[in-house]
Amino acid sequence: MNVAPAALRDLVRGIFEKHGMSAAHAALTAEVLVWADQRGMGTHGVMRVPQYVRFIGKGDLNPKPAMKRVDRGAAVVLLEADRAAGPIAMMEGMRAACEKAKSAGIGLSLIKQTTHTAALGYYTQSAARDGFAAIALGTSSPLMAYHGARAAGVSTAPLSIAVPGEAEPFALDMASSMISMGALAQARRSGKSIPEGVALTADGAPTTDPTKASIPLPLGGAKGSGLGFMFECLASLLVSNPILAESLERTPASRQHRQNGLAIAIDVERFVAPEVFRREAARLAADLRKLPGDEILMPGERGARKAASQRESVSIADSVYEELKAL
Amino acid sequence: MNVAPAALRDLVRGIFEKHGMSAAHAALTAEVLVWADQRGMGTHGVMRVPQYVRFIGKGDLNPKPAMKRVDRGAAVVLLEADRAAGPIAMMEGMRAACEKAKSAGIGLSLIKQTTHTAALGYYTQSAARDGFAAIALGTSSPLMAYHGARAAGVSTAPLSIAVPGEAEPFALDMASSMISMGALAQARRSGKSIPEGVALTADGAPTTDPTKASIPLPLGGAKGSGLGFMFECLASLLVSNPILAESLERTPASRQHRQNGLAIAIDVERFVAPEVFRREAARLAADLRKLPGDEILMPGERGARKAASQRESVSIADSVYEELKAL
Repeated sequence: MNVAPAALRDLVRGIFEKHGMSAAHAALTAEVLVWADQRGMGTHGVMRVPQYVRFIGKGDLNPKPAMKRVDRGAAVVLLEADRAAGPIAMMEGMRAACEKAKSAGIGLSLIKQTTHTAALGYYTQSAARDGFAAIALGTSSPLMAYHGARAAGVSTAPLSIAVPGEAEPFALDMASSMISMGALAQARRSGKSIPEGVALTADGAPTTDPTKASIPLPLGGAKGSGLGFMFECLASLLVSNPILAESLERTPASRQHRQNGLAIAIDVERFVAPEVFRREAARLAADLRKLPGDEILMPGERGARKAASQRESVSIADSVYEELKAL
Repeated sequence: MNVAPAALRDLVRGIFEKHGMSAAHAALTAEVLVWADQRGMGTHGVMRVPQYVRFIGKGDLNPKPAMKRVDRGAAVVLLEADRAAGPIAMMEGMRAACEKAKSAGIGLSLIKQTTHTAALGYYTQSAARDGFAAIALGTSSPLMAYHGARAAGVSTAPLSIAVPGEAEPFALDMASSMISMGALAQARRSGKSIPEGVALTADGAPTTDPTKASIPLPLGGAKGSGLGFMFECLASLLVSNPILAESLERTPASRQHRQNGLAIAIDVERFVAPEVFRREAARLAADLRKLPGDEILMPGERGARKAASQRESVSIADSVYEELKAL
């Protein structure tokens, strides 16, 4: 069904407020989730709301977090997120990285102990609109196969990079897996078989059967799982909050849902006039669009087009809407 | 044939000295190239020497660069590399990033106008041995297809991430292409057909014919070419030295070989005691190695094993050795 984005945001905001979030936190979390739906990333959209509510119920997500920004140097910040909703912690982390970048040229935030980080592109694009080149990544429990292993060993290692662009920032959003968890879930629902070489069964056997596929394979084998390994080292081990090892060893701590994040901002105008940067980025895009090919899109362009088409009305599954209404 | 690494380094150093490099620059360039051969990355090893010498002859590579480190903030440096050999510029850039990280927590170097950056892992692993988490990336002329296009549009977008590890750092080295330029060249020589979906002919047609394959396809489609786009924005547009657009527009500047690089260092001990970090990284590796599977390697492990086996004697192609002797 189709819903006005403002109405959807209100609905979601109300749910989170009812479950203990401040008005500001509920509004930002709703904003980030609806943004993902508008950009066509439904798996990171409002269909996550029931899960977030369950996390609150279990105590995994703290609706009233006491986040603590700990200065660790002229350009680095540790954000103790106190189990805040991902959008709250990641936006705060990105803001802190941008502040550091403003004073030092580059800024790094390590976001410790947050929950589902939602669509990383929201945070990087927000920074890019403010004149920064921004990088965000996250790490979670083992979901993706480690190259050579017949089992999940690393997170799907999501990465977003955004830079100031034309009207909208140029923005790359990717997981380091051959297929996303969302696409696997969708294949399961539709019953459509999946391509060879993108996923394993729960027992670690290669499969194209959507009902049995549960572990995505890493992009480029050792490359994708290497990114997963490194993201855990950067986002989790630097802040002494290991997620993968705890899960692989099935420790009590691993029963709690948690994620860590990392945000880097680079102040563009330290190096080049922002309008020159934007002009050169647009020039590169124009040159690439002129290459022979059928549909040549710049990073983030598909999402931006979808968002433009869903500015007034966003499409979400009936079942999701019913669930939200019930909440 | 097999050569003692020290003898090979001496030979290469002599060649570069003869072509105008200082003893220190010639020694470092030789060191980085031989290191790649020892780790089994022959395509980034001494087989590059004749190319570097040609670059010197054409004036593309400056054997006596006047590199200039320009401070752009508490945590950022612009290194004007003056067409220095990649190993010289990238090591200087990584060193500058580490110095900034030591004082500010994170440091960024943008390395403007260097030449072939060689094996990025050398620079990141060097920083990791000194206690930093390090990231390096490079950008060059269009080599890899842009997703959706039937032509090369972006570089192969090499990326390296290294962190302090067990005896050796954990170190990811990857190109963002389905197949490396080196592997394509190797297939061409051996005549062995290449897998489907990894490369195009010069005319942009899909091929498995090694004699016709010349343009690698991007890893994961839009993901790999998106990384290529972003690396150009970060390494080239921030320093006002565009490479891709100039090449795509065939401007006079594009006739010169040149590359740009980026180095980031994060000072591990700002966040956690280095021995705790190393212990946790080793714990993660141990947990992953216990997963069911046949050969589960950590990032950089294959190269480290190869290097251990080639500590006393490194294997290089007879033809390459003859070429070096002739030089």
